[in-house]
Amino acid sequence: MHSRRVTIAEIAASAGVSVPTVSKVLNGRADVSETTRRRVQQIMVDRGYQRRTPGGERPVGLIDMVVPGLDSPWVVEVLRGAEAEARKVGSQIVVTSAEHAPAGDRRWLDRLANRRSDGIVLVVSEAAPGTVEQLRALRTPVVLLDPVGGSDPSFATVGATNWSGGLSAVEHLAGLGHRRIAVLSGRPELMCSQQRVEGYRAALGRAGIPVDERLVQFSDFRTSSGQAGARAVLDLPDPPTAIFAGSDMQAFGVYQEAAARGLRIPDDLSVVGFDDIAFSELTTPPLTTVRQPMARMATEAVRLLLDSDDRPSGPPPRVELATHLVVRGSTGPAPREAYSCLLASNYTETS
Amino acid sequence: MHSRRVTIAEIAASAGVSVPTVSKVLNGRADVSETTRRRVQQIMVDRGYQRRTPGGERPVGLIDMVVPGLDSPWVVEVLRGAEAEARKVGSQIVVTSAEHAPAGDRRWLDRLANRRSDGIVLVVSEAAPGTVEQLRALRTPVVLLDPVGGSDPSFATVGATNWSGGLSAVEHLAGLGHRRIAVLSGRPELMCSQQRVEGYRAALGRAGIPVDERLVQFSDFRTSSGQAGARAVLDLPDPPTAIFAGSDMQAFGVYQEAAARGLRIPDDLSVVGFDDIAFSELTTPPLTTVRQPMARMATEAVRLLLDSDDRPSGPPPRVELATHLVVRGSTGPAPREAYSCLLASNYTETS
Repeated sequence: MHSRRVTIAEIAASAGVSVPTVSKVLNGRADVSETTRRRVQQIMVDRGYQRRTPGGERPVGLIDMVVPGLDSPWVVEVLRGAEAEARKVGSQIVVTSAEHAPAGDRRWLDRLANRRSDGIVLVVSEAAPGTVEQLRALRTPVVLLDPVGGSDPSFATVGATNWSGGLSAVEHLAGLGHRRIAVLSGRPELMCSQQRVEGYRAALGRAGIPVDERLVQFSDFRTSSGQAGARAVLDLPDPPTAIFAGSDMQAFGVYQEAAARGLRIPDDLSVVGFDDIAFSELTTPPLTTVRQPMARMATEAVRLLLDSDDRPSGPPPRVELATHLVVRGSTGPAPREAYSCLLASNYTETS
Repeated sequence: MHSRRVTIAEIAASAGVSVPTVSKVLNGRADVSETTRRRVQQIMVDRGYQRRTPGGERPVGLIDMVVPGLDSPWVVEVLRGAEAEARKVGSQIVVTSAEHAPAGDRRWLDRLANRRSDGIVLVVSEAAPGTVEQLRALRTPVVLLDPVGGSDPSFATVGATNWSGGLSAVEHLAGLGHRRIAVLSGRPELMCSQQRVEGYRAALGRAGIPVDERLVQFSDFRTSSGQAGARAVLDLPDPPTAIFAGSDMQAFGVYQEAAARGLRIPDDLSVVGFDDIAFSELTTPPLTTVRQPMARMATEAVRLLLDSDDRPSGPPPRVELATHLVVRGSTGPAPREAYSCLLASNYTETS
């Protein structure tokens, strides 16, 4: 049984505004007050307003990809995966950067609303208040790529196994004999930051190593933050012999701090990253890192978009693609000072 | 005086095909033979067929960017510049990758032809035969970003000062006392490869250093080629003390080869790159390189597209943006073995 479709006029009547105002909200125009926009959007959602007959319009051959910025090397990998998948059905990717948008600035959403789209892949680690409502009001399929947890469950989501990734990185280090292992991660309120650190804690627990909270640093995923985090833990009286960085960019900051202190990687300090961006195999030494399959995640997101008409009703899927450790040259056995002392004293005793 | 606009029917009559066939060619459909497509396109060009009234249609808010692939870190910089400039006029960027297209495969062009666009920025270092004709037949403004020389002069072009960049790189090395300087460059048929090497030759000439052709290596701009090129010149009986790589990616290959041989950068070997991609300041040591303003070049390309209606008639512009040397940690004074020997012999004489 299908309920009768609600009309724009009915939405306008419920919201106590004119039909042109509802139309402006639908089209993402700026000349509507925030209060009115939200009220109209809420009514659209509540009444199940559908801008299009589902499946009734022919695709326009454009899939929108909203990225947090165009200054990260992993963005090009996300675009590559999305573009290749879109190409299979003759579609193309429209890139929109949400960068430099002050909190609550949703002009990028307005631009999406001005034009037809077959779907939106939203690559944002957090959504500003109101964004979710406005996206739903567009009535265009939306897939979220690796968002923070607690995202609106009405959208399909693609992520990676952050916890397992953190676990495998730190188990690798513990297996090499490291006992003082630091972790640098992103902003603590991001689910992915938390999960990587939780994986770290689990690996230490399995190895019987107590967690020293001074070795757990949250900041953000940039190189400068990686360097600052490395400085903080290496300045401790009992510095770590290994650092698990929450991103490859942070790991390069650890490389910089190590070089500044004359520490050799991996002889004096082992480093593991997270992401496996293209550059990570080109560093000296090449970076051991947890591979997050960015391109495949984007491929999966586009596939979910294109399949959204055929999906049975029920909660939208959450797909988590596996991460895996790529061992390269930046990790090695723990320095053996402590062990050497022991050997030296044994030697003294027996000589 | 304006000449009467030629019609599709006239094109069809001239080409000896039906009107629907001309329409298929216009819309980039695949079910037209290559011979017919070319004949129709040639007649369109010869007769000055214009699909649209110039300036008469309202913009669709989409600018197409065709890139050679989505696997290079500089692509994201090009996208960033284009997206930011497009955003100013409320437009968005559609990304099309021409990668994996076998020679002559112009399906990416067909996809462009299936939809209206306000303009096309073509970021390709070489155009397949027929591409130029098909682009002109689309009657959409086209700007070429850093193409090979000899490109069709009917398109506006944005490039960088490759020759001056090569000159400044090698003058910097000569100024540090290097006399054995190698150059690695891209494919020899690319104008940008040639120009960088010509800048190298000019700098050597100014410094009074004869060119040793064994130190001039053409290959391609990838990291593996940089490593192979470094291996070739470092294996010479009289190896260089400095290498000017034609791209930063190549320079990272030189880093790898240096590490494999135990050569320290810059103590034993100075390295200069070309491009200044985001990573180049994150390597250990940070890379001295010739900055090519990719984002600004893309900004300029979009600006040229948007201005194309207002441009006076005459040859389309070619804009070359300046490169400049960014000195970081990978270059230093030439190793002083020769000089040390001289000192040693002096010392022997006087002691």
